[in-house]
Amino acid sequence: MMTTAPLSDLDIAQKIKLSPITEIAKKLGLDPEEIEMYGKFKAKLPLNNIDKEKVKQGNLILVSAISPTPAGEGKTTVSIGLSEALNRLGKKTTVVLREPSLGPVFGIKGGATGGGYSQVLPMEDINLHFTGDFSAIEKAHNLLAALVDNNIQSKVNNLGLDPRTISLKRVMDVNDRALRNIVIGLGGTGSGIPRESGFDITAASEIMAIMCLTENLEDLKGRLGNIFIGYTYDKKPIYARDLNAEGAMATLLKDALKPNLVQTVEGNPAIIHLGPFANIAQGTNSVIATRMGMSLSDYTVTEAGFGFDLGAEKFLDIKCQSAGLAPKVVVMTTTIRALKYHGGAPLSTLTIPNVEALIKGLPNLEKHLENAKLYNITPVIAINKFFSDSEEEIQVIFDLAKRLDIKVALSDGWAKGGEGALDLAAKVIEAIEENDAPFKPLYQWDQDVMTKIDTIAKKIYGAEKVEYAPKARKDLKTILDLDLDNLPICIAKTQKSLSDDPLLLGRPTGFTLNVREIQIAAGAGFLIPITGEMMRMPGLPAHPASENINIDLEGNISGLI
Amino acid sequence: MMTTAPLSDLDIAQKIKLSPITEIAKKLGLDPEEIEMYGKFKAKLPLNNIDKEKVKQGNLILVSAISPTPAGEGKTTVSIGLSEALNRLGKKTTVVLREPSLGPVFGIKGGATGGGYSQVLPMEDINLHFTGDFSAIEKAHNLLAALVDNNIQSKVNNLGLDPRTISLKRVMDVNDRALRNIVIGLGGTGSGIPRESGFDITAASEIMAIMCLTENLEDLKGRLGNIFIGYTYDKKPIYARDLNAEGAMATLLKDALKPNLVQTVEGNPAIIHLGPFANIAQGTNSVIATRMGMSLSDYTVTEAGFGFDLGAEKFLDIKCQSAGLAPKVVVMTTTIRALKYHGGAPLSTLTIPNVEALIKGLPNLEKHLENAKLYNITPVIAINKFFSDSEEEIQVIFDLAKRLDIKVALSDGWAKGGEGALDLAAKVIEAIEENDAPFKPLYQWDQDVMTKIDTIAKKIYGAEKVEYAPKARKDLKTILDLDLDNLPICIAKTQKSLSDDPLLLGRPTGFTLNVREIQIAAGAGFLIPITGEMMRMPGLPAHPASENINIDLEGNISGLI
Repeated sequence: MMTTAPLSDLDIAQKIKLSPITEIAKKLGLDPEEIEMYGKFKAKLPLNNIDKEKVKQGNLILVSAISPTPAGEGKTTVSIGLSEALNRLGKKTTVVLREPSLGPVFGIKGGATGGGYSQVLPMEDINLHFTGDFSAIEKAHNLLAALVDNNIQSKVNNLGLDPRTISLKRVMDVNDRALRNIVIGLGGTGSGIPRESGFDITAASEIMAIMCLTENLEDLKGRLGNIFIGYTYDKKPIYARDLNAEGAMATLLKDALKPNLVQTVEGNPAIIHLGPFANIAQGTNSVIATRMGMSLSDYTVTEAGFGFDLGAEKFLDIKCQSAGLAPKVVVMTTTIRALKYHGGAPLSTLTIPNVEALIKGLPNLEKHLENAKLYNITPVIAINKFFSDSEEEIQVIFDLAKRLDIKVALSDGWAKGGEGALDLAAKVIEAIEENDAPFKPLYQWDQDVMTKIDTIAKKIYGAEKVEYAPKARKDLKTILDLDLDNLPICIAKTQKSLSDDPLLLGRPTGFTLNVREIQIAAGAGFLIPITGEMMRMPGLPAHPASENINIDLEGNISGLI
Repeated sequence: MMTTAPLSDLDIAQKIKLSPITEIAKKLGLDPEEIEMYGKFKAKLPLNNIDKEKVKQGNLILVSAISPTPAGEGKTTVSIGLSEALNRLGKKTTVVLREPSLGPVFGIKGGATGGGYSQVLPMEDINLHFTGDFSAIEKAHNLLAALVDNNIQSKVNNLGLDPRTISLKRVMDVNDRALRNIVIGLGGTGSGIPRESGFDITAASEIMAIMCLTENLEDLKGRLGNIFIGYTYDKKPIYARDLNAEGAMATLLKDALKPNLVQTVEGNPAIIHLGPFANIAQGTNSVIATRMGMSLSDYTVTEAGFGFDLGAEKFLDIKCQSAGLAPKVVVMTTTIRALKYHGGAPLSTLTIPNVEALIKGLPNLEKHLENAKLYNITPVIAINKFFSDSEEEIQVIFDLAKRLDIKVALSDGWAKGGEGALDLAAKVIEAIEENDAPFKPLYQWDQDVMTKIDTIAKKIYGAEKVEYAPKARKDLKTILDLDLDNLPICIAKTQKSLSDDPLLLGRPTGFTLNVREIQIAAGAGFLIPITGEMMRMPGLPAHPASENINIDLEGNISGLI
């Protein structure tokens, strides 16, 4: 096995000789004039490259996962490895991913560009500002916020907004807990009306969610205009369009709307675009990026954040229904360590073989597999391999797969790149070729709000019942008043459990889902029932990752994780 | 004269067929592989294109101005027109400008890419996010601020910073007056230590000033590490380096350090890079950009913000001394309207011929011309032409120039492009060829702080004396304690008057300059005596410009000014 110190992801990334991005574009059939270069190794893909016919015929592969441990189970790494392997098998494949959030790069979590020999490159640029998409969203969001505060102190065209009802905060892509709760507008009459407010991290902006669901600039303006701001003193709802904000906001977002082309370690195309979180938003890259991948290749591998209950459910019921997409297969990323965790093994012991805990944890995997079938989608289990996995443990999962008649393969893209995922790729191709059941969404958007929430809670999470706090009941009434009850549901829930209690591991049953409140994302076009405490602005740890990040005179970066 | 509605700057910009930026780079002798493209019409220029020998030999032309009216006197338009004209005369010329700040684009002021037929293009992109430089500075600044607040609540490695002494604010490139004065860290123990703070606009960040004075990534890290944060409870000064912040900050700034290449209306090269304000910082583009222009062409036209007393004084005493640069000529941008304003004509009457007011305003021009000569630099007067200027008024300025033995030319680049500035260009070439006096700075950096302030106040502003408020005297002691008294001086002063009183027009004499406090920009490497009220975060007007900005389905932008 390993005898020397392992290479870091950055070490591996810096060893790879990148191809000019024009060469990668050629693999997608695009000439240099059809892309917009951002340096030598990144490019934006104009929207006119989307081909609706190709999208209809494409093979969309959704990579999801079981309920993860805090470290995550490696969906991005599996997605990239699988894409490399499909290309090795002669299938023209593009992996379509989310952009990393900059804040966590300097905190604990680090970047999000895959790992080992399954990475997207240049990882430094992708993890830092990339092509400025997040910054553009931040500017558009904060312009709207400035227009709101400008209006409430304006004498000329004051809309009569009641500052106490304003739900729109500001955003910043920095982990900065001191900005969660602030008082703004202090300093006298020239500097605004004092009121409570705060900052969320940029990935939590409603504009991030909007950008991921929109079709084009015209549709974007409509959605931006629909962002709900608050109420006037006489209870009239105010939207962004009432501030004439949507034209300037869309102008700020014109380039951010174009997906970004980069490359994998093995020189295959990767499209990376935007990134809402999956616990508080829909957790997947943009409709435009997915369509772009499907337009330019025959197989498209994409992922949706956290476990199947969060990212995949929202991918299928919000994004797919909205955009007319349907994946032909779901790859269920599974790790031995996470299943042992669900079987009761403490986090610190997960590298020690423990078949007993593993077997106790299997029901979590089983539940997610059952959930995929609710949509008429064939799941394939991908065991994302770690050095600590024992043969005996791996066999337990193969036995389960056999019992359930579900395809399973090891995925070792981290250590071996595409070669490590050839078996998985073959199983995925088989599953696509065998599958002929039509995609079936879990619920219809025009059902009433409580029915939709009930369906997700009981069928996907396994809840016995749903309870609504008084605030949530008031919100239900508001939603009806605003005529927004036909929007789909985007439940904000912990990723650590199928339930809303992070301590209920495995496959919890008999629990009640507690809806505290229901936020309205009228622009994005969904309702957000909040369960538990959802953090919209992370903090930094005692020793932030930033302390180890450095750059030398020649521009070589070190310490990025 | 004009019979139809005049075209807007945006109309003119959108009529121009742009050359691929690779063609513009070729004019500078650069192959496509030597630049980093950002789309088809923008590129970044890597620092290895700087040629120290060429910089020594180059002809640097500084465009300055008399004390401006609130509308500004058109230094950018004059700079671009002059550069076009020099190229028409066969001189290989690059114009080197500051980047516009995004905030004002959506407020009152609009963008800053020249006007009429003297513009830099694509004006939409340059006025919006451009290549992300401002966003990178914002992120680096706000990362440092988050590290500060993270440290003051840390139990592990708390430096003992007294929150009441922290001078570092956060920054955002949005005109948002409600963020000027805020209380952060509310919401309980998990969300920081409550304290007063605020946001400045990004152009006011010390990091903007640092980026404009730095030589390379290594020097940048040193300067970032020197940013002064505040004091511990036992009065020990704390710098950014004490938070190990500089490596991560420089990593965020690696691409922002590279100047941007775009083109003028007539297809000549323009380098645009960064932009600190001239009333609170040094008000000129980066040392790196100026050197890049001088490395790649024979004549380099650049500008420094507001009147000669602000931008040019700082350009000469801070930037030139720091970087070993010396302009061979100063173009003094003059408008008939501004001189009438200095002669007592109200703002609303400036388009009406008024020779009497004009003559009364001439001393303002005379004082700025005398100031240029203090540095041994030949001034050339450029009369930036407006439709309302009468022949008789123009003659008054020509007469003055003759009396003072100073070259003068009309500059009509706004209406006619390079053709309108041919006479100015010829005069500038003559002045450069005639000039052989060595550049002489106004003061030496190693003089004591009060002497340096005194020299600027009396020699440049024309003050009779300088008075220091008690806070300023305390700051002087702090500067000595911190061993920072050998830094140059960057006086924060109104641009509306040569004095610190915006109402004293013309050429005020006998006044006292009142220094309220002296801020320390230890990272940028200068001291900022504050005179009067300086606004570091603008607000939006009752009808923000954003209300008229729009974009259509095809991406065509309207309403940008």
